[in-house]
Amino acid sequence: MKKYKIDFEKSGGIIPAVVQDFNAGDVLMLAYMNEEAFGLTQTTGYAHYYSRSRNSIWKKGESSGHLQIVKEIYLDCDSDSVLLKVIQLGDAACHEGYRSCFFKRIEGDSFSIDVHPVFDPTEVYKD
Amino acid sequence: MKKYKIDFEKSGGIIPAVVQDFNAGDVLMLAYMNEEAFGLTQTTGYAHYYSRSRNSIWKKGESSGHLQIVKEIYLDCDSDSVLLKVIQLGDAACHEGYRSCFFKRIEGDSFSIDVHPVFDPTEVYKD
Repeated sequence: MKKYKIDFEKSGGIIPAVVQDFNAGDVLMLAYMNEEAFGLTQTTGYAHYYSRSRNSIWKKGESSGHLQIVKEIYLDCDSDSVLLKVIQLGDAACHEGYRSCFFKRIEGDSFSIDVHPVFDPTEVYKD
Repeated sequence: MKKYKIDFEKSGGIIPAVVQDFNAGDVLMLAYMNEEAFGLTQTTGYAHYYSRSRNSIWKKGESSGHLQIVKEIYLDCDSDSVLLKVIQLGDAACHEGYRSCFFKRIEGDSFSIDVHPVFDPTEVYKD
């Protein structure tokens, strides 16, 4: 086992985190982590991210209940991005109710949505 | 079919692109695209990215031959990242010879490499 050092500095203190379902293997979302979010993810076992728009840490699923249990974390060759393999509670990662945030399939200058939402956001995110 | 508009402005003109194997479903790498790289990817069918360190477009596999044939492109809910589903020529995406750039599995403050390289970088990248 060797020590690693994540290159948070390269992108101003945050790195992208690709989130993949541990069992099914589909890509659920992409979010960002600063060093604190990464540390919280490691110590708690639940995915924590950094919101660039709100400038704050968020625990995934805190309001929806759709927490992500982190099973494995991989660091990339350049040490500037991570891949989380998670168990997605509620079977959906996207705040719009879809299983994956990547639900818009692009064709040319248009997109189609070939999947159905797993939940109704208006029911899950109340007030 | 609806029109989409990718939010390149949010992160200074570039967006992250998650790259997943079309058939096997494993995550191969994360790279960045500016609008030109995205356009080239769409028009040629081969993945093109934007190098933040070199400030230039690169065609994936141009020197190694490990091109990526793009089968599907998905846009995320916030329109600020994309997922490419690709056929990876040469069976390896990482310039270090591994199938995936995410080959370092993190445990605490250390990492291990549980996979073997697919190719020898010193053989593939000559001058």
